[in-house]
Parts: sequence; C-alpha cells; structure tokens
Amino acid sequence: MASEKEASRGLEWQVTVPGGSSVKLESDSVPTAAGWRMHRLKSALTSKVFDFASTVRKIAADDPRKVVHCMKVGLALALVSVFYYTRPLYDGVGGAAMWAVMTVVVVFEFTVGGSLYKGLNRATATLSAGSVAFGIHWLAIKSGRTADHIILGASVFLLSSAATFSKFIPTIKARFDYGVTIFILTFNLVAVSSYRVEKLLALAQWRFCTITIGFCICLTVCVVICPVWAGEELHRLVMRNMEKLADSLEESVAEYLEEEGGVDCNQKLGQKSQGYKCVLNSKSSEDSLANLARWEPSHGCFSFQHPWRRYLEVGAAMRQCAYCIESLDSCINSENQQPPDSVKKHLAKVYAKVTTESSKVLKELASSFRSMRKPSSIDYLVEDMKNTADELQNALGSLPQEATSLIVETLPLITAASLLIEVSVRVEGVVHAVKEITALPCFKPTNGEELKAQNKAPSTVA
Amino acid sequence: MASEKEASRGLEWQVTVPGGSSVKLESDSVPTAAGWRMHRLKSALTSKVFDFASTVRKIAADDPRKVVHCMKVGLALALVSVFYYTRPLYDGVGGAAMWAVMTVVVVFEFTVGGSLYKGLNRATATLSAGSVAFGIHWLAIKSGRTADHIILGASVFLLSSAATFSKFIPTIKARFDYGVTIFILTFNLVAVSSYRVEKLLALAQWRFCTITIGFCICLTVCVVICPVWAGEELHRLVMRNMEKLADSLEESVAEYLEEEGGVDCNQKLGQKSQGYKCVLNSKSSEDSLANLARWEPSHGCFSFQHPWRRYLEVGAAMRQCAYCIESLDSCINSENQQPPDSVKKHLAKVYAKVTTESSKVLKELASSFRSMRKPSSIDYLVEDMKNTADELQNALGSLPQEATSLIVETLPLITAASLLIEVSVRVEGVVHAVKEITALPCFKPTNGEELKAQNKAPSTVA
Repeated sequence: MASEKEASRGLEWQVTVPGGSSVKLESDSVPTAAGWRMHRLKSALTSKVFDFASTVRKIAADDPRKVVHCMKVGLALALVSVFYYTRPLYDGVGGAAMWAVMTVVVVFEFTVGGSLYKGLNRATATLSAGSVAFGIHWLAIKSGRTADHIILGASVFLLSSAATFSKFIPTIKARFDYGVTIFILTFNLVAVSSYRVEKLLALAQWRFCTITIGFCICLTVCVVICPVWAGEELHRLVMRNMEKLADSLEESVAEYLEEEGGVDCNQKLGQKSQGYKCVLNSKSSEDSLANLARWEPSHGCFSFQHPWRRYLEVGAAMRQCAYCIESLDSCINSENQQPPDSVKKHLAKVYAKVTTESSKVLKELASSFRSMRKPSSIDYLVEDMKNTADELQNALGSLPQEATSLIVETLPLITAASLLIEVSVRVEGVVHAVKEITALPCFKPTNGEELKAQNKAPSTVA
Repeated sequence: MASEKEASRGLEWQVTVPGGSSVKLESDSVPTAAGWRMHRLKSALTSKVFDFASTVRKIAADDPRKVVHCMKVGLALALVSVFYYTRPLYDGVGGAAMWAVMTVVVVFEFTVGGSLYKGLNRATATLSAGSVAFGIHWLAIKSGRTADHIILGASVFLLSSAATFSKFIPTIKARFDYGVTIFILTFNLVAVSSYRVEKLLALAQWRFCTITIGFCICLTVCVVICPVWAGEELHRLVMRNMEKLADSLEESVAEYLEEEGGVDCNQKLGQKSQGYKCVLNSKSSEDSLANLARWEPSHGCFSFQHPWRRYLEVGAAMRQCAYCIESLDSCINSENQQPPDSVKKHLAKVYAKVTTESSKVLKELASSFRSMRKPSSIDYLVEDMKNTADELQNALGSLPQEATSLIVETLPLITAASLLIEVSVRVEGVVHAVKEITALPCFKPTNGEELKAQNKAPSTVA
C-alpha cells in the first residue's frame, strides 16, 4: 500500500513538456513533506511557464504582424514621452502631456481603420461636446446662482441619458460607439468645471492641441511602419474562407469515398475537412472588419468608397454553404447503415465529380480575389457544376433495383446526394454575391479579355 | 405629360407616418423651383425624423430596461457632479474630479457584470501599474541624469509592447482586455511625469481615492436600481433560443405538410419558422455574456461559482441543431419536384410526430430553465422522440413501390426525413448538455420528486 503511494507520488514528479515527451525529475534524497510540496509547486509552475511560452510562440508565429504591432505601440508611446521630455510645456500627471499619452494608448489599434475610427471619433466628439458644454456653461453663469446649478444638473442628466440611449441604435453603435462615450466624458468634464469661461476656452484649446499631437504620432507610426489595413484583412479573410470551404467540401467527400487510407492520411484529411467550421464562426470578425474598413482611405487596389458591405453578403452566402456542408459532413460520418457496395460504386464517380466541380468554382473565385483579376472562366465552371449536379440527379433516378428496395440502407447516401445538389445551388449564390465585387474596376480583366477589350476599342473609334 | 409630372410631384409630398397611413400635405399655391426644392427637403427631413423616432420607439418598447439604463447613467453622472460641487476639493478640468467622472462614464455598463469587470480591472490595473512605474521611476532617479532617460524610455517601450502583446492571448483578452489598456495608460502617465517621488505618491493616492468614489457611485446605482445581471441574461437567452428552435422546427414542417392555409396563416408561420436564424447568430452574445457573468456575485438562483461555461456548450449544441434545421428548411422550401401525394400521405403523420416530439423535448428544457426546476419527464420525452424517429425510419423502409421507383421525385421528402432523424439525434445532444446544468442544486426538484425525496429521507434516517 505504502509503495503504491510512493509510486503514485513518483508519477507526480513527471513534468509534461509540450511536444508529447515527459521529463522525469530525479530526486537526490527522500523528500520531506514541505520539500515535496515545494517540488510539486515548482514542477506545476514549470509546466505552466512552458505552456504559456508555447502559446506566446504560437501566436507570434501564426501572425508576426502582431509582434510588429506591439513594437509599434511601444514606439509611439516612447515618441510621445520623448516629445514631452524635451519640451518645457509639461506639468505633471494632470497636465497636457496626459492627453497625448491617453490618446495614443486608447486610439492605437491593430488596423489602420481601427485607429482612424477611434481617432476621428475622439476628435469630433471632443470638439462637439466641448462646444455644447461651453454654451450651457455660459447660459448657466448668465442665469444666476441658483438657476446655475439646476441648469447644469439637468443638462448633465438629460444629455448623458440621451447620448447613452443613442448607443442602442444599431447604426450609431456600429460607427460612433466610441465617439458617444467621449462625447459624454468631455461634456461632463467641461460642464462640472467651475472655471471662468475664458480660462475654460484656453484649456479646451490646449487639450485639443495635445490630442491632435497624440493622434498624429499614433497615425504616423500606424500607417508608415507595416500598416495593417482592415479592408485588406476582410478581403483576405473572405478569400481564405472560400479556399477552406472548397477544401472541406472536397476532403470530406474524398474521405468517405476512399476510406482505404491509413490513419495518418485520414487525420490529415480530417483537419482540412473541418475548414467549414471557420466559415461558420467568422461572422463577427467580418462585421467588425467591414465597419473599420469604411474609415480607411484609398490603399493598394481598394478605393475609399470600396463597397465593403458586399463582402458581408459574400460571407453570408458562404455561411449558407457551410451550413449545408455541416449537415453533409455529419450525414457522411454518422451513417449507421452501410450502403450496398454496388450502389456506392454507382454513385461514387458522380459524387466526386460534383464536389470537384463545386470546389473548382470556389477556388476560381478565391484565386480571382488573390490576383485581383476578374474570374474569366467562372461562367463555364458554373455551367459544368450545374451539369454534374444534373448528372447526379440522373444517377439517383437510375439507381439499381437493389438500392431502391433497400431504402433504409441507402438513406445516408441518398441524403448526401441531395445535400450535395443543394451545396452546388448555394455555391451559385456565392458566385452571384462575388460577381458584384469582381465587376468593380479594381479587378483587372484577365489577359484574354484585356486583348479583346483592346481590339474592340480601336474599332469603335474607327 | 405635364399633368403626369404634376401628379408625381404630388405623390412626393406625401409623408408616410409609421403605422401604415400616409398624410397628404396641402400646398396653398403652385410652388416655385426653389420653393419646391425646399418642400422636398422638408418632406425628406420629416420622413427621416419619423423613421428615427419609430426606431427609437421600437428599441425602447422592445426592452424598457434600456431606457432605465440611460437614466441610471444620467443619475450617476449627476450624483458625481453634485458630490464635487458641494466639496471644496475640486480644482478644474485637470483635477481630481476628472477621474471620478471618467470612471463613471467608462465603467458604467448595461449589465452588473460589465460594470464589475471594468471597475475591478480599472482598480487593479491602476494599482499595479502605479507600483511598477513608481519602482522604475525611483530606479531612474537613483541612477543619474543620463541613465535616467534611457531607463525610462526603454521601460516605456518594453512594458507597453509586452502588455499590448498580452491582449492577443485569448484568455487575457477575454478577462483582462480593459485592465491591460488601463495598465499601459497608468504606467505611461506615471513614468513620463517629472515629479519628485513624494509628490507622485500623494497624487497616486489622491487619484486612486477618486476612482474608488466614482466606482462606488457607479456600482451603487447599477446594482440598486433595476439591476441587469449578465448571468440572468445568458440564462434567458439560452432559454429563448430553445423555444425558438422548437417553434421553428414545428412550424417549418407544419407549413410544408398543411399548405392549405391562407396567405395570412403562412406569413405568420413563416415568421416563427425563421427563429432558428437567431440561434445561428447568437454565438458572440453568448460568449460575451458568459465572460461578464463570471464577475457577478451570487444573485437570485445563481451562485458566484455558477458554471456559466456550460451554457456555451448548450449554445453550441443548439447551433448544431440549427444548422440541420436550416438544411431541412431549405430542403422543404426549394423542392422542385412534387412528390406523389400517396407518398406524402404515407409519411405526413410520422413527420408531424417526429417534429412534435422533438420540439416537446426542447420546450420541456426551456420550461425547466424558466421555472428553475429539474426537467422531471425529460427521459420519457427523449424515449418517445427516439421511438418516433425509429418509426420514421421504418416508414421510409416500407414506402410504396411507386415511391421507390420515382426516387428523383421523392428525393426532397426522403432527404427531409433523413434530416429530421438527424435533428432528433442533435436534440439529444442538447439534452445531454443541459443535464449538466439542471443537475445543479439551484434547480429544484419538481413536486413529485420532492415528495419522493422527502419520503426517502426519513426512511434512510430511520
């Protein structure tokens, strides 16, 4: 009994190192109770630190721009500090420099759109709230000692309530949420101040000036050093989701039809075939990126008025696809009944064809997004996809007698076929949504079309 | 032609009033071009104002607590103002009162959990960043004129970068996002200040005291007047989603099987049958509510350690259901082929049974959530649901010959049946996820079980 305990204690000394191997710590002597507790604590701490380090390493490796972003924030703050160290206009924690530091900390975001959204919101809200508060302050002072307090108290209550309510209105929430917060803040700061109007004006001017300096430093660092554009991120996110959808569609059906592959192969397939789950969960990222992208100026191929809203439609169409693929995936994996081999063989080829054609369409759209060229062959590909879907329907119609009499056994196969046909219909929906984006002039025609357009142009002039 | 134009102009004068009726504005004389433009502008403005008003009215009517929240914010700010008006410790925009106002504006959230999250994060971050900055400041001053600047600059850069990076780690992002921002802010404010250490200490003390006063006012108003608990919101959201799922499941199939109903009836059904879409889109709300709920103290039936994470599992299981219902819905609505009537009749009854039983299960779970009682009859209901699903499978196996030979025509019907069976499997998944919540002691046993337990208790004692 005692030796068992000893052994189990021994096991607890093992530290699992990420990567699968476990390290055995050697003890020099039989540990006392306190020493043992210390060792346990130490090993637990070591494994925690290892876990944390590997998480950090993974995040940094997955997207090195995140590391760059952190250094940019550090740099911007160091610049603000230096700026105020070398100038005599600084007077402590409550002074003007505070507003510059605060602006940089609060406004600096990962994307340029995010920084612009917050910066412009902050500037506009500070200006407008300052003016309103200034007016009310003036009115309060003019109206004597008692009315003064009533007017100020009532205005603080009413304006704060109204501004807070405006945050519940979806369009204001999406575009001006931060601005409304700053409006309430600035209005209250100015309204409750007991300064004379002239001094207030000077202070407001001073504060606005410092905020502007902070904003400029922040924006310069954000745009000049490896800028991350929200619009570009959205474009890439949608593109990658198309690829994931195509992969998971192809792989999940391949997995089902082949089934001869080893475990390793299946695991690899399994990972790829789960790509549609990313599509299912990317709505909130798409929404927030689209909201930030509209604040960004013209950059790369994208103009200021690029219709980012259209990307949300593409995202919605892709999620429609993903819902169907999810059902298809579970239908393929959860089959209790083994369909007769003859039926499986009868359909296997057409199945593979439909998935290949559907994923070809999605991949063509993704590659068009990648190269910023119009998808020239998309109409043919859609036509092919439709034809194979019809083929699948015909194949279902001509199932051997054996299959139709064993309807329960062939049920998963028939359902999968039906869902595949539905997927191809929904892929058409994606094509439709994408067409409104690729029709924009920022998408260049492919070489063939370019030549055609060039040949056409002179003839109309002549 | 002219009269036509006149008429169309006349139409533009109509103002649509929310509620369906339109008001016709009478013009006294034939308008001039400028006057006409003015009138157009006026009517456009009027309709904008009306639209806005109806949006506001709708938001307020849908959730009156939002209106109460706005008034609470106004009240808290008015209280802070009064507090600082009546005391002589106030010295202007940059003074101590500022921190109290800022705390209330930034910390006051719709839910108690939100306010607690922000308030506690703010307090902890201010304290810890203040101490770190104080230490570095002291070190810098000790090390002479040149090293001073280098130490401060480097520490600003390094600590700000590291803290910014920590925001990319998911667990820190979820729980301490706001705290990290405040940490960076406070650290920089103190580090760049050129005060002597003694004065800095006094200032820090003062600032912390003011933040505490602001936080206390904010929290008192938030908790005492109609508190909105994030945990309760999450509980209700999950409950309503269960009901919506049950409704949409029932209605979408009823819609398909009946089809004799008038347009009005169909429209009503259509609205209810779209409830699953709310379930598809509620992931982000669930996540954020669960994050806030863990900050809340014991309230109502929920203890401090209530396992809010389990609700996310229930949410995930319900979304699995919703994906399947989405496919089912589109399969029912997009059918190109009319299945033979005999087949439809053969399956209609079993179809209706499966949907009824599945939605009964979901409704039992929802009512258990509503009454905070254990779902006593859930095991029988699940058994019934499974039996009907088996029945449906058998009905498919015994389809009349006619059906199996017309497989293309019956395809949507067979697919729908297969998806219905899958839905019932996934409803079981929801039951499984919910059971871990209803097993908690905060769920009271139903009367029958209570009696049983009471009867049992004395016997074991005896």
